[in-house]
Amino acid sequence: MEPFRGVEIVRVRAGSREAAIDRAATEEPLEIRLHGRPFAVIMRTPGADLELAAGFLLAERVIRTADDLGAIEHCRDESSAGAENVVNVTLDGAAAASLDAVLAGRRQIAVSASCGLCGRLAIDSLRVDVPPIESAWTVTRALLAELPHRLRDAQAVFDETGGLHAAGLFTRDGRLAASAEDVGRHNAVDKVIGKRLLADALPLSDSMLFVSGRTSYEIVQKAALAGVPILAAVSAPSSLAIDLARDTGITLAGFVRDGAFNLYSHPSRVE
Amino acid sequence: MEPFRGVEIVRVRAGSREAAIDRAATEEPLEIRLHGRPFAVIMRTPGADLELAAGFLLAERVIRTADDLGAIEHCRDESSAGAENVVNVTLDGAAAASLDAVLAGRRQIAVSASCGLCGRLAIDSLRVDVPPIESAWTVTRALLAELPHRLRDAQAVFDETGGLHAAGLFTRDGRLAASAEDVGRHNAVDKVIGKRLLADALPLSDSMLFVSGRTSYEIVQKAALAGVPILAAVSAPSSLAIDLARDTGITLAGFVRDGAFNLYSHPSRVE
Repeated sequence: MEPFRGVEIVRVRAGSREAAIDRAATEEPLEIRLHGRPFAVIMRTPGADLELAAGFLLAERVIRTADDLGAIEHCRDESSAGAENVVNVTLDGAAAASLDAVLAGRRQIAVSASCGLCGRLAIDSLRVDVPPIESAWTVTRALLAELPHRLRDAQAVFDETGGLHAAGLFTRDGRLAASAEDVGRHNAVDKVIGKRLLADALPLSDSMLFVSGRTSYEIVQKAALAGVPILAAVSAPSSLAIDLARDTGITLAGFVRDGAFNLYSHPSRVE
Repeated sequence: MEPFRGVEIVRVRAGSREAAIDRAATEEPLEIRLHGRPFAVIMRTPGADLELAAGFLLAERVIRTADDLGAIEHCRDESSAGAENVVNVTLDGAAAASLDAVLAGRRQIAVSASCGLCGRLAIDSLRVDVPPIESAWTVTRALLAELPHRLRDAQAVFDETGGLHAAGLFTRDGRLAASAEDVGRHNAVDKVIGKRLLADALPLSDSMLFVSGRTSYEIVQKAALAGVPILAAVSAPSSLAIDLARDTGITLAGFVRDGAFNLYSHPSRVE
């Protein structure tokens, strides 16, 4: 799998709008198994998967040294389409003795019976719970391009530390309905959606969500679960974020800067 | 709790080095309980905690609408120092009926018997497993300031997409020993540390770790578990990242740009 993928986009500038091909960083789930049993699923960019599995197990304190590792390899079932997204690890020494305790303490993970897990499967699994977003209203280029400025005006802390992510929920006419800042990108999104949830305002069919930073699968998933039809970000989306936005009916904008942006899905909501 | 905190730093520029006070974004764990039972711990910036809990439960698909929420409030045990870091949620309707199944599926979380969980506790818990880092070697300002350029020279994908984080492990004399790019900041760190782990090269007492982006508690934790004495980043560290670096003996540098940087802990390793 390549670390990036070509994607069709619509490039929107003041006075112009053109189809183009851009590149998006690949995001795919990696399932880590211990002795063939599911342990964790990580969203990652393919490449150095064995190293990632080893480092992750160290950070999770499942292993302490290389001596705790037996075999570490990709799934061998070559007939399975997603085998490259599965790494199986066998433990050795003290780590092996605590295998059952480690697995018992993990969150249960839904996996398919086959060897593989792929982005397609992750999306299908989400689609079960999320009705496609069908809001038909539109926003002008000028208004969408202005959201970063409107959010920044409301940010109290950001300029003080340079260390916070921000998220803002806007009404169709661009009024800021909720904003939040957090060291965690996902937290900032959870905070603004949670605020509207507590006000019993879901689904957010008449809202736009704007986030600082990049757009990952998880951010699009949060927007989809809340029913937000337009999601925009300062930086780039991942490949799986684009796939999920296309499938759930979300208009996804990236690189919203200096009055311009790229549209990665459902461009018809932007005039 | 304030969303940022004053921290003592050493500001290092070409030809100057001075003590200063900077501000760091606050990072503290928030424990979310369901009917008094532990459900999840999130590292977050204090503020809008109830909204965060609600949004998080929506994204985890524990609730679907506001009707699924009963009470949602901070821990009431005012005698407990960390009560502001605990939110208890009671579920209602269909969500309440599935409470036991939801809790059974969660990873078990170690929590104190009391009401509170605080950053101090998170650090103490880690300290049990991690010996303090005592490497006594030093690096020059010029070499530390050059790490971003050396890492970027090795990054193949970043410039293509603008969507990837990078991490690099450097030897004492500044040679790049491992680098990785990933949509996930933590993954990039796990990949480079995992590479050295698989080569049986841990602890990394003679290494410097450089990361793009910000430094959170988790990034410092990964460095500590691998024994890395010097951790540097392009952007800001969180409050808890600074606390953990101070406690584990790690030299933490932030805002490494244009030949200058800030030191947040153990500045004596930089000449």
